[in-house]
Amino acid sequence: MKFDEAYSGNVFIKSHPVFEESEAVLYGMPMDWTVSFRPGSRFGPTRIREVSIGLEEYSPYLDRELEEVKFFDAGDIPLPFGNPQRSIDMIENFVDSLLDAGKFPMGMGGEHLVTWPVIKAMFKKYPDMAIIHMDAHTDLREDYEGEPLSHASIIRKSAELIGPKNVYSFGIRSGLKEEFQWARENGMHISKFEVLEPLKEVLPQLAGRPVYVTIDIDVLDPAHAPGTGTVDCGGITSKELLASIHEIARSEINVVGCDLVEVAPIYDPSEQTANTASKLIREMILGWVQKG
Amino acid sequence: MKFDEAYSGNVFIKSHPVFEESEAVLYGMPMDWTVSFRPGSRFGPTRIREVSIGLEEYSPYLDRELEEVKFFDAGDIPLPFGNPQRSIDMIENFVDSLLDAGKFPMGMGGEHLVTWPVIKAMFKKYPDMAIIHMDAHTDLREDYEGEPLSHASIIRKSAELIGPKNVYSFGIRSGLKEEFQWARENGMHISKFEVLEPLKEVLPQLAGRPVYVTIDIDVLDPAHAPGTGTVDCGGITSKELLASIHEIARSEINVVGCDLVEVAPIYDPSEQTANTASKLIREMILGWVQKG
Amino acid sequence: MKFDEAYSGNVFIKSHPVFEESEAVLYGMPMDWTVSFRPGSRFGPTRIREVSIGLEEYSPYLDRELEEVKFFDAGDIPLPFGNPQRSIDMIENFVDSLLDAGKFPMGMGGEHLVTWPVIKAMFKKYPDMAIIHMDAHTDLREDYEGEPLSHASIIRKSAELIGPKNVYSFGIRSGLKEEFQWARENGMHISKFEVLEPLKEVLPQLAGRPVYVTIDIDVLDPAHAPGTGTVDCGGITSKELLASIHEIARSEINVVGCDLVEVAPIYDPSEQTANTASKLIREMILGWVQKG
Amino acid sequence: MKFDEAYSGNVFIKSHPVFEESEAVLYGMPMDWTVSFRPGSRFGPTRIREVSIGLEEYSPYLDRELEEVKFFDAGDIPLPFGNPQRSIDMIENFVDSLLDAGKFPMGMGGEHLVTWPVIKAMFKKYPDMAIIHMDAHTDLREDYEGEPLSHASIIRKSAELIGPKNVYSFGIRSGLKEEFQWARENGMHISKFEVLEPLKEVLPQLAGRPVYVTIDIDVLDPAHAPGTGTVDCGGITSKELLASIHEIARSEINVVGCDLVEVAPIYDPSEQTANTASKLIREMILGWVQKG
Amino acid sequence: MKFDEAYSGNVFIKSHPVFEESEAVLYGMPMDWTVSFRPGSRFGPTRIREVSIGLEEYSPYLDRELEEVKFFDAGDIPLPFGNPQRSIDMIENFVDSLLDAGKFPMGMGGEHLVTWPVIKAMFKKYPDMAIIHMDAHTDLREDYEGEPLSHASIIRKSAELIGPKNVYSFGIRSGLKEEFQWARENGMHISKFEVLEPLKEVLPQLAGRPVYVTIDIDVLDPAHAPGTGTVDCGGITSKELLASIHEIARSEINVVGCDLVEVAPIYDPSEQTANTASKLIREMILGWVQKG
Amino acid sequence: MKFDEAYSGNVFIKSHPVFEESEAVLYGMPMDWTVSFRPGSRFGPTRIREVSIGLEEYSPYLDRELEEVKFFDAGDIPLPFGNPQRSIDMIENFVDSLLDAGKFPMGMGGEHLVTWPVIKAMFKKYPDMAIIHMDAHTDLREDYEGEPLSHASIIRKSAELIGPKNVYSFGIRSGLKEEFQWARENGMHISKFEVLEPLKEVLPQLAGRPVYVTIDIDVLDPAHAPGTGTVDCGGITSKELLASIHEIARSEINVVGCDLVEVAPIYDPSEQTANTASKLIREMILGWVQKG
Repeated sequence: MKFDEAYSGNVFIKSHPVFEESEAVLYGMPMDWTVSFRPGSRFGPTRIREVSIGLEEYSPYLDRELEEVKFFDAGDIPLPFGNPQRSIDMIENFVDSLLDAGKFPMGMGGEHLVTWPVIKAMFKKYPDMAIIHMDAHTDLREDYEGEPLSHASIIRKSAELIGPKNVYSFGIRSGLKEEFQWARENGMHISKFEVLEPLKEVLPQLAGRPVYVTIDIDVLDPAHAPGTGTVDCGGITSKELLASIHEIARSEINVVGCDLVEVAPIYDPSEQTANTASKLIREMILGWVQKG
Repeated sequence: MKFDEAYSGNVFIKSHPVFEESEAVLYGMPMDWTVSFRPGSRFGPTRIREVSIGLEEYSPYLDRELEEVKFFDAGDIPLPFGNPQRSIDMIENFVDSLLDAGKFPMGMGGEHLVTWPVIKAMFKKYPDMAIIHMDAHTDLREDYEGEPLSHASIIRKSAELIGPKNVYSFGIRSGLKEEFQWARENGMHISKFEVLEPLKEVLPQLAGRPVYVTIDIDVLDPAHAPGTGTVDCGGITSKELLASIHEIARSEINVVGCDLVEVAPIYDPSEQTANTASKLIREMILGWVQKG
Repeated sequence: MKFDEAYSGNVFIKSHPVFEESEAVLYGMPMDWTVSFRPGSRFGPTRIREVSIGLEEYSPYLDRELEEVKFFDAGDIPLPFGNPQRSIDMIENFVDSLLDAGKFPMGMGGEHLVTWPVIKAMFKKYPDMAIIHMDAHTDLREDYEGEPLSHASIIRKSAELIGPKNVYSFGIRSGLKEEFQWARENGMHISKFEVLEPLKEVLPQLAGRPVYVTIDIDVLDPAHAPGTGTVDCGGITSKELLASIHEIARSEINVVGCDLVEVAPIYDPSEQTANTASKLIREMILGWVQKG
Repeated sequence: MKFDEAYSGNVFIKSHPVFEESEAVLYGMPMDWTVSFRPGSRFGPTRIREVSIGLEEYSPYLDRELEEVKFFDAGDIPLPFGNPQRSIDMIENFVDSLLDAGKFPMGMGGEHLVTWPVIKAMFKKYPDMAIIHMDAHTDLREDYEGEPLSHASIIRKSAELIGPKNVYSFGIRSGLKEEFQWARENGMHISKFEVLEPLKEVLPQLAGRPVYVTIDIDVLDPAHAPGTGTVDCGGITSKELLASIHEIARSEINVVGCDLVEVAPIYDPSEQTANTASKLIREMILGWVQKG
Repeated sequence: MKFDEAYSGNVFIKSHPVFEESEAVLYGMPMDWTVSFRPGSRFGPTRIREVSIGLEEYSPYLDRELEEVKFFDAGDIPLPFGNPQRSIDMIENFVDSLLDAGKFPMGMGGEHLVTWPVIKAMFKKYPDMAIIHMDAHTDLREDYEGEPLSHASIIRKSAELIGPKNVYSFGIRSGLKEEFQWARENGMHISKFEVLEPLKEVLPQLAGRPVYVTIDIDVLDPAHAPGTGTVDCGGITSKELLASIHEIARSEINVVGCDLVEVAPIYDPSEQTANTASKLIREMILGWVQKG
Repeated sequence: MKFDEAYSGNVFIKSHPVFEESEAVLYGMPMDWTVSFRPGSRFGPTRIREVSIGLEEYSPYLDRELEEVKFFDAGDIPLPFGNPQRSIDMIENFVDSLLDAGKFPMGMGGEHLVTWPVIKAMFKKYPDMAIIHMDAHTDLREDYEGEPLSHASIIRKSAELIGPKNVYSFGIRSGLKEEFQWARENGMHISKFEVLEPLKEVLPQLAGRPVYVTIDIDVLDPAHAPGTGTVDCGGITSKELLASIHEIARSEINVVGCDLVEVAPIYDPSEQTANTASKLIREMILGWVQKG
């Protein structure tokens, strides 16, 4: 036994040990410094990996096994505490490098603001990209208490970058009146309350296009994901979210990257949210990588 | 800055600071002394206010904002510990005064017995009133262990006061055999297990009538409301409860008062139940006040 | 007052005090020593009994009361810690004796492996029996890390004993690829993801046959049963599981024994899973005993 | 294996199965209905028994084993919910019977009021008895909110019954100014803040006398007993409480009965308080029974 | 009953209702945005008030009652989320006004950085002031990750303002090597590990001087205060902290203001830390106000 | 930025990245399969690393910084679930290799049985070694329920291997009568209840000898370490344990290896035990490595 064999580490189950041989790269973005209500998502990626050892490697939904997809777990990007701007720059650089190396980026938050630099990096490579966004919240604020870099403005900034018409939000049940208005006036798609049925309608329109998918775990009802900063009742079930992931897997869109954000272990005493997140990530790996 | 400006206090988000200018009054009834199984709801109103700071003020369901309704948060009625009779008298006096002042009463429990004095006060003003009751439990006992003042007898006492034919219970999935029989024999309406669909049938029959709505949070499945004294599986989702609130908002009944009871923070480690309760109250404010 | 009157003990609510006069016998099998991920189910039976005092004795679903069925609570079988083989032998002996005495056996786990010796005992008495199995997991492994006695192999061993064609699994959403293959190749029935609808199709085929029903609480979604060792999102609701129990109660199959396993109190901070389990057991008692 | 052998039940570890052959009787008094702040102690006795399976039967402090003392676990007295007077009467009757049968009574609360009927029963048999009381609180109120039967008045009532000069309180760090005054004026002994050192001074004065010892778990600092209704910092360590129990064991007083009250499992997420209580009870059994 | 009588609100027990008539003012500073490890102290003041209802109003340590000191509970200063500079300015203004009005300021954090603006305000009024600081951490960093406004630099900034020789730290058990060096080289007092004994030596040196006392709840061992952001074992007991408060009360120093910071409810499942904080505040009110 | 720079991973804070350059090696032994009461320590090492990011790297006790000692974090040894014998063999091989490479072994459990193979490996290299053992429990059983490989027999087996006279246990407060007898009769040292004072007496006797130190976290009182399988009140404080570590650091014994075992995160809701363990490990690294 050699020492690097001994190391079981804390990586996602069945991740591939060699970066160069991998198709996809999983990475954590442990940042929660712009969160207004209940912080704690900085510990999300570590816990998701930890509980992933309880996962089966086979998906009876997709009839695939984790061994069929090579993904490297790059660990957490060492973001500097309390410094949103530098954190964002580091994430963008990191994803730039992944894309240069031809890898499929797969992020774990952290607060939702971590998606902003990823979108910036993706857009440089895929100028015709669209975004599928599943969330309880619009995240369309121009700023939050005067601060433009906020978890509440991530979709607004992204929409302004790639064009509101290219952004499709699902499951939304919370936001300012002005945010809904802005979306309507700028041609952005918002499906309120539901995910699966409206997604089935939208996916054919996106056939063949490169699409980045960002999932805020709070799109789930608090019954299904209590371990997150902003619980908001009236959400969808984990069954519907799984079905939505599978619907995308079966569609003709070209998923080019994705993330799952806002898992906060401290509000998750029985670890059900972390376990759910780890299964969602398995299905995203099995269903979305190699679709391009 | 003056000192009363400094005070952000612990009031429900966006409550109006002046009693006289308000249409509705929100108040807590922190009593749980007749609870048989798991007490703790006396701390419910305080926690619901505390987490309300995480709420958006806009409802995408009703397309209204909290600023459109003036409601005053009167805090908790200082009920004397362990004395159900005096507590009940204080609540009745309090609601009498609210009704005299022309306010819409909106209570937060506390155990379900707190609704009894409210009903007495309402009935004096609205002798033709009906009650819509959403709950896991019938609450139709004549007494509980020989004690007529009990959380398990609140609907029985109310039905005897205003007439069983004027009481409509929904979502019921627990009770004594005798309770269901009494309801049947006395013409009281009970919809077992479901809320939304039977409610749609009943609402037209109540058009134009003054109706008091009392919601026990345990009408929700424990998945959606673990933080309550008597969890009972097989309940409805928070989505169905929200839809039921909105169905009432869109109906032609005249809601004249309401309450939400039995939130118990100690069984709510991730605070999901308190968060859900605060959102339900927002929807009740936006949907039901000014309907009269 | 005599001393044995004083004793309220920790038995399931309304259990009958005399073994000889009882039709059914409820017993705990407090074993979790082969569990790979999150142990703790050894404390399940004790906690289920403890919270059963919060149950009503009447079922509005079945319109029956616990008093109508005489069941004896035999407590927990004193299984020797860390010794799966001897534990299994003790359980088999215990159930042999129950069957000799003409009792309906009703077990509470413990990990799922405890069902194996029960099946062995049942099969000696009912050589034409079938098994209905509700679970998130296939439990069809030939062995687990080389160990044939494992919670992950209980259905495989049972299927090999009574014939795979006599085993009907429902709600399955996790397992190895090989397990699903083995089931398919050997004519075993597996309904993936759903329980109620496929059960409605299967029950008529089993009319008149003796059937043992084993329920792993993790067939429920983690939202409905966080308190178990292996939470796996995408499961059914407690409403669907209750309806499935009632569907069996109304069917023409001959239930000859049953169990409910894998409740783990340490992951159940608000005790919702234990409460749900105690209600499920009430419905199983009221719906399945005396069906033979 | 016979069925009553199968039953491991939920009794205190190594309790003797036959009442008649036992010297001492352990019993639960699951009542918390007069508690003002945080109820929940009604579930204390059950949980203490449950965790007692983790105890060694040997005490290295006293060099004795549980097998050397025959004690019967009578379970919980089935107290009627919400009825303090009838509960108190039942407890008094129960202890009367124990004393008639020559047994050493050993109670587990429940709130501290349960000690009142025990004292009444003891005093009938031992008119020259003294009380040793360890607690954070004086419990000397004449009434609580007008109610004379209260957990806050138990020592006052006892002192009035047996004479204040016969009551010795230790570890007290909370109470009304009037309570301390009453004690002073009536010759009752109160040691503030400390237990062990003042106890060493008092014990010789009580040599040869029959003494009842009542321990409220909150005499411990919240660090050592978070799982109780009224946590009050500045308390003693579990080491000091153990040493105090052993000091009594080595003294020449004649312990004639004892109790341990106010363990509330809901505030005890890691079960440390219940575990501590079960060890304290083991030491009380080994140190105090047979001392008479 | 009038409506402002009805309001029991969420204020510290026995606080005086009228600002103008009060000697001291209690206020919350709900900020935790510069916290590096485990945030959550923004909810501290609210929870401390909530549990204060379980406190006795009499201190047997000081033989005084809360009624003897008039203190007004001003609620929480409505600090703008995520903006340390503006938050600090608001706190400074608030305390300026308190001092103008001749009130004794008594703050509740929030993270320790909230003490910085208070010191600035105090120093304007008391240029000869000293600081007594009880904490697990030095808090002497020049900056934290380049950010000078940090919970880790509060004592450094204060020492630079009022002179390091006027700052006395106690109970310190964590910090950078450079921080201890800086203290040594600049004549600042640091007592490592202990509080009470070194305090007894220091207090006579400060006789007659105006002193501000700031207590970080983490000076307590995690056993006594698990509910804080940075738990660090090897700390003092709540008994020692109480004794230290009383030692100051009996000394001849002139306490001119004080605070207690870093209570974080989310890490405090049994609420022991919040309860301890509320008792400490009672003792600070009874012992320190009116000492000047 | 390169990808292996990006990886912050889940390693102990300030661990050295290169095995070859390190003096000491930290490794996890995630096994709990022979635990009788409350399992869960298999997750201990991962959680200890996770919270280590909250540690300062400087020890004010020892005036040393983590940078002064090069230690490599080898992660967890991938022990095969449920197979004690193979797990033990893997650990022994692993430590053999460490010793061959001249490294100081530093283990994290897992249950206490993991120390057995470490002792076997150490003894091959240091035939004159002694063991210092801090624990609540004797761990001197010959077997447990007939099983010689058990967490309850680890010290017995070790004493039989290296000679009972070379084993020194401290803080013991639980065990069978026979275990204490065996120790006495075989010349093994047991200090009951206390650690620091008896350690001061023993250390001079061991001057110059190679000593392995094994610490079971339950030597601490449950107040200081609730997060472990077998909590047992009456233990020492974290202050005393820190002082004992420092006493060893200052002594003339030659520490040649060490471990800290039995941290179980599931019983540690506020993570205080994991935080305490991480600080203890820092002090063990700073105080014991390089002592040889």
